[in-house]
Amino acid sequence: MSAGETGIEKIVRISFDELDWEFQRVLLKIGFESEKAKMCAHIFAENTLIGVNTHGVNRFPRFVRYVQEGFVKPHAEPQLRHKAGAIEQWDGCLGPGPLNALRCTERAMELAREHGMGGVALSNTNHWMRGGFYGWKAATAGFGFIGWTNTTSNMPAWGATDPRVGNNPLVLGFPGGETPVVLDMAMSQFSYGTVEQYDRRGQLLPMPGGFDAHGVLTANASAILDSRRLLPMGYWKGSGLALLLDLLAAALSGGLPTVDISKRKDEYGLSQVFIAFDISKLATRNQMANLVGTVIEDLHRSIPDGDGEVIYPGERVKRTRAENMLKGIPVDASIWAEVLIL
Amino acid sequence: MSAGETGIEKIVRISFDELDWEFQRVLLKIGFESEKAKMCAHIFAENTLIGVNTHGVNRFPRFVRYVQEGFVKPHAEPQLRHKAGAIEQWDGCLGPGPLNALRCTERAMELAREHGMGGVALSNTNHWMRGGFYGWKAATAGFGFIGWTNTTSNMPAWGATDPRVGNNPLVLGFPGGETPVVLDMAMSQFSYGTVEQYDRRGQLLPMPGGFDAHGVLTANASAILDSRRLLPMGYWKGSGLALLLDLLAAALSGGLPTVDISKRKDEYGLSQVFIAFDISKLATRNQMANLVGTVIEDLHRSIPDGDGEVIYPGERVKRTRAENMLKGIPVDASIWAEVLIL
Repeated sequence: MSAGETGIEKIVRISFDELDWEFQRVLLKIGFESEKAKMCAHIFAENTLIGVNTHGVNRFPRFVRYVQEGFVKPHAEPQLRHKAGAIEQWDGCLGPGPLNALRCTERAMELAREHGMGGVALSNTNHWMRGGFYGWKAATAGFGFIGWTNTTSNMPAWGATDPRVGNNPLVLGFPGGETPVVLDMAMSQFSYGTVEQYDRRGQLLPMPGGFDAHGVLTANASAILDSRRLLPMGYWKGSGLALLLDLLAAALSGGLPTVDISKRKDEYGLSQVFIAFDISKLATRNQMANLVGTVIEDLHRSIPDGDGEVIYPGERVKRTRAENMLKGIPVDASIWAEVLIL
Repeated sequence: MSAGETGIEKIVRISFDELDWEFQRVLLKIGFESEKAKMCAHIFAENTLIGVNTHGVNRFPRFVRYVQEGFVKPHAEPQLRHKAGAIEQWDGCLGPGPLNALRCTERAMELAREHGMGGVALSNTNHWMRGGFYGWKAATAGFGFIGWTNTTSNMPAWGATDPRVGNNPLVLGFPGGETPVVLDMAMSQFSYGTVEQYDRRGQLLPMPGGFDAHGVLTANASAILDSRRLLPMGYWKGSGLALLLDLLAAALSGGLPTVDISKRKDEYGLSQVFIAFDISKLATRNQMANLVGTVIEDLHRSIPDGDGEVIYPGERVKRTRAENMLKGIPVDASIWAEVLIL
């Protein structure tokens, strides 16, 4: 019985440790070394803990399938191919996307310590799951961060009906006050993961997120999944930004652009960019604390529209994490059942 | 008789040379040195030539007023304050925004030649007019480019009714095939300049661009100008991105964030970031030509929705420039009259 038939999805609450442990169990079973299984499981568990199930538990079975089908090589390590000073080209060797992305974020920070700002352009890698993870990593270590990935084509360019651009998520991170300020946004108004989640739950999207078969803007998740016409965020803006991010990622990394990734049966061999700024080289700790305090305080003084709250990107994470640690993490029962039998 | 009353705006066509000459005449008159008048006039004329009147001729009278009122210092030169390797902090000394931005774009390219990628963070500068100009400059010289500016607060954060974030335009540039690929986008769905233009012409925006006094999304330009509630592009995404760009610009440059700029009666003393990538250090000329050719060809193969065209950001510029060079540049008659008596 699928959610699409009933409009109801049963949710179970799973503890962080159980989630983490199950992910590790499966990864070890499909051939990951112990340390890699641990870190990779941690990233999937962390993404789920803060409520991004679409790039946590929901995506885990597909990740496992990609390993089994050979698109993701569990033992591969990213390799430095070319140094150009503050920016380097690395080859992901089709290793696990989250591990490659984490390694390159760390390398970008090392380069930033040396050069004020540092960049790694990574070819031949795989889906990094939740890009915000790397933004958090950099921001909690005191770095500014800009990173992005390309994807297979999954969105029509503005004015088009057939998908030829990727939704190429872009991440910006900044060391926070209570929690870092981290924005993780796909170039489509909603990611496919989110549209699928609304579809499974039989809910309308909160605002139009794509076109139906007749080319009319709609909030109906199922109609969008049928037409494959996701709406670019900001109309022509998200479409244009997706194209530029793709060109930059492919050119800087020497990797594949979306058009070439899309020739493959499955989505693997992506191009990504990681840029870190060592803010401590440019601002004192006091200046930084003042800046963040002043900007966030002012944002919080906003007059809300209705009874909502005005928050910064990443602000909700702390609350969600605390609540889910206490009560267990809400997970779709059918997906959890899938994980347990992997 | 204002456009608001009639809904009709008379357009005149002015040659590029006349526009350029008039701008130079006025700038010399208000105290610019010859070389600076020439370059600054050129940027205003070029922006108008390619159809971005909002940051060309339409904005020129306000630029002149800012010089006269002392917010923009015509003789000021940007000064290097701090070197951190591949990224440098410069002080704009409240000089003319377009000249400061051009200088820092050039400096970012020099740093990129040396370090693979280079950045300049600029404090204490002024409105750069059309950010795309600097993206074009870098891209035609063979560089990848990411740049942004903060602004005074002119847009409510997502979920808020009072304006506390800037529309902080972001520019990405990439060396093109026929013309560079350059995206220049404000974080509001439409800039105030554009909304004002629609209002003057008595036209509806092509899609909702803000909220009316009752908090309802609307395409009515005049209602948006009254409520001062511009819509962030991509809803929460543009709002979040505006905040991150502001934090990064202020922290990296040591300059003012939007909240502090907004305490001033007028918009001056902005913070900006210019990042250039020396693609020649990472890709051969052939690889680059192949990449751009493949990506753009694929985009052009898109099936258009209706009888429109699917184009890349910047593609229309070449056509507009050629047409306007031939026929003269369309300019609102009332604005041109204003310039002539400056």
